[in-house]
Amino acid sequence: MKATGIVVEYNPFHNGHKLHATEARKTTNAQIIIAVMSGNFLQRGEPAFVDKWARTEMALQNGIDIVFELPYAFATAHAPTFAEGAIKILDAACCDFYCFGSEDGHIQPFENSMALLDNQHTQYERKIKEAVQHGISYPQAVNAAYKDTVQTDNTNRPYVDLSKPNNILGFHYMQAAKQINSNMQAATIQRMGAAYHDEELKDQRIASATGIRKSYFETNTLHDTQNFLPGSVYQLLKAWQGDHSAFGSWKSFYPLLRLIILRDGPKRLAHVADVTEGIENLFYRAAVNHDTFDGFMHTVKSKRYTWTRIQRMLTHIFTGYSYNTRSKINTPTYLRLLGMTQAGRLYLNKQKKNFKLPIVSKVSSFSDPSLDIDIHAANLYALGLGKSEMNVDYKNIPIFIRESQ
Amino acid sequence: MKATGIVVEYNPFHNGHKLHATEARKTTNAQIIIAVMSGNFLQRGEPAFVDKWARTEMALQNGIDIVFELPYAFATAHAPTFAEGAIKILDAACCDFYCFGSEDGHIQPFENSMALLDNQHTQYERKIKEAVQHGISYPQAVNAAYKDTVQTDNTNRPYVDLSKPNNILGFHYMQAAKQINSNMQAATIQRMGAAYHDEELKDQRIASATGIRKSYFETNTLHDTQNFLPGSVYQLLKAWQGDHSAFGSWKSFYPLLRLIILRDGPKRLAHVADVTEGIENLFYRAAVNHDTFDGFMHTVKSKRYTWTRIQRMLTHIFTGYSYNTRSKINTPTYLRLLGMTQAGRLYLNKQKKNFKLPIVSKVSSFSDPSLDIDIHAANLYALGLGKSEMNVDYKNIPIFIRESQ
Repeated sequence: MKATGIVVEYNPFHNGHKLHATEARKTTNAQIIIAVMSGNFLQRGEPAFVDKWARTEMALQNGIDIVFELPYAFATAHAPTFAEGAIKILDAACCDFYCFGSEDGHIQPFENSMALLDNQHTQYERKIKEAVQHGISYPQAVNAAYKDTVQTDNTNRPYVDLSKPNNILGFHYMQAAKQINSNMQAATIQRMGAAYHDEELKDQRIASATGIRKSYFETNTLHDTQNFLPGSVYQLLKAWQGDHSAFGSWKSFYPLLRLIILRDGPKRLAHVADVTEGIENLFYRAAVNHDTFDGFMHTVKSKRYTWTRIQRMLTHIFTGYSYNTRSKINTPTYLRLLGMTQAGRLYLNKQKKNFKLPIVSKVSSFSDPSLDIDIHAANLYALGLGKSEMNVDYKNIPIFIRESQ
Repeated sequence: MKATGIVVEYNPFHNGHKLHATEARKTTNAQIIIAVMSGNFLQRGEPAFVDKWARTEMALQNGIDIVFELPYAFATAHAPTFAEGAIKILDAACCDFYCFGSEDGHIQPFENSMALLDNQHTQYERKIKEAVQHGISYPQAVNAAYKDTVQTDNTNRPYVDLSKPNNILGFHYMQAAKQINSNMQAATIQRMGAAYHDEELKDQRIASATGIRKSYFETNTLHDTQNFLPGSVYQLLKAWQGDHSAFGSWKSFYPLLRLIILRDGPKRLAHVADVTEGIENLFYRAAVNHDTFDGFMHTVKSKRYTWTRIQRMLTHIFTGYSYNTRSKINTPTYLRLLGMTQAGRLYLNKQKKNFKLPIVSKVSSFSDPSLDIDIHAANLYALGLGKSEMNVDYKNIPIFIRESQ
């Protein structure tokens, strides 16, 4: 049974994701698709639209065979760490391929670029470091250093355009796989339809997850999202809407975030992971003066920090994830199974003896600092949504779906 | 102008308080009554029923000439520290007398007891220490040591009964005054009507503040409290009810307290003042399992800790008041003026040059760690009530009322 791994957030799952899963299966000729999926807080530093259990169900009903949780420590980290965590999990689960969506759509330019940067390693790293020291954001610094390196090459080989967000992320996956000498092969498929950051729903069946969420938050109804979602996902979102008063967003979580900022005060906030250079004082003042998330962000946003970077700090403030806690987590130590199909179960039964990390199906029978953080983050997410039941991770068993659609 | 100081919480102000003010004025033949009043969190470890501004207005309309705020660090401390803070403030404000309500009602037995314990100091302190080490609560230990000391005396002088809560508190005031060699004279008046902890509204015009709050929380209406409140207080409470969705209580603050406990986790909670001996783990588990304050308290309450002691820990958790913060505050350093009458203003103008501490009328023009905590606590209290305006302390000026009723 050949398995292909993909790295996903599914926030929420949409037609583009379904297409990606189908294409990944086809391109790599795989029987099994394994998704490593972020939990309840995402890489852009936001609470998920719906929780990891609902998103796992969406995935299993739409072409994914196994869902592992990407631990909080990696899911909310900057791209290199995010990629490292995800790739290590797919590698530990004995995937033959990992397949990512990219603007480029061909793997050769990625491999050329990998080789180029390998040759020019020292100069490249120096260029990034210098740019960051000059106050340029990390993604911009990487981009500039890379462009510079490509321009000075005269072999005429095609290189991948690393100004494109999905190309960048894919490149990080490849670097992570190389770093651990993974046996997995890289594959990529071109992203279809809306680009990652497109916010408006287009007159087509593919829209970005950002656009889908935006449509909901602007209209307070799921109606306009229906065209862009598999039927089963639409039904799941409708059910969520019935069960909960809200979908996850900073807008709805803000009163609690504000309480935490005001209660902790700048001194304590300075201990939170990623909070740096006195921005804790700005956060505190903004929380004093603003009772909406928009007002808060308007005050704290500056050229110095990307929106994503600020939101990641806010995520860590919300969950109380400190520098100290983070320093204890270096690498994934388990495969947290969120769900599987019948085919996924067969794969697990057959392959798990070869897995490089233990599978965690039942949280109570495994003890690990990173897992504690995942459970903790799920509790804070639930409180953000106004739910009162805590430690759902202890109660839920992995979702099992007989057959994916 | 002779001034008499009283120590109050006014939670809320009622007929008994009015009577106390009148009696204090009469007994000590004072022109001015100065109240040192707790802010938004009280000595029993609870959020105040209404905020310090509303309670100041009640006081000024009913016989009090000047209201100073007892800083959070003292207002929420155990009895000896509470008393020390309050007495130092009244002493700094040049009061001639301090007058407290007591079950005894005569000052001579208090003075006899002071002299007795002075003579027997070493044995008495040893008895308390031993009892506390045997796991007996501090108030009980003091009580037992005192009884023992009185029984072994054979001078036939009357001693005060220190098993009574108001006698105890009065005794602490006297000890504090002695400790600073205050020139103030002690006076006491007998508490009328309902005892301090009586919870049921009696068929009379005097009821305890506890009973008044209980009546409101059980019926969700102020109707049954009307008989026990001066008319102006009843009107202020009605207005508060119109302006706010809630009166202050742990029941209504609990969702936010729970968020803080769950977000901080046991390790961080252990840094909070008064949290000791691993009770942080019990708090955390109770918060996981309970979404109501009653359920939470049912789980954490044990013989080891009094209800008050637990609530004080919860107050400090809610405000984030750590051992470290507390260690920086040893003594009152200012007189925070919350309000005054015309007569009170005359007194201040005449006497302030003799005051031992600076008067703070405008928070922004004074910088002090203890004052920062008072402002911080007021913010957290406002958030507990669901209010969004922060730093009201910076905006409010002392309340001025031309004539008290």
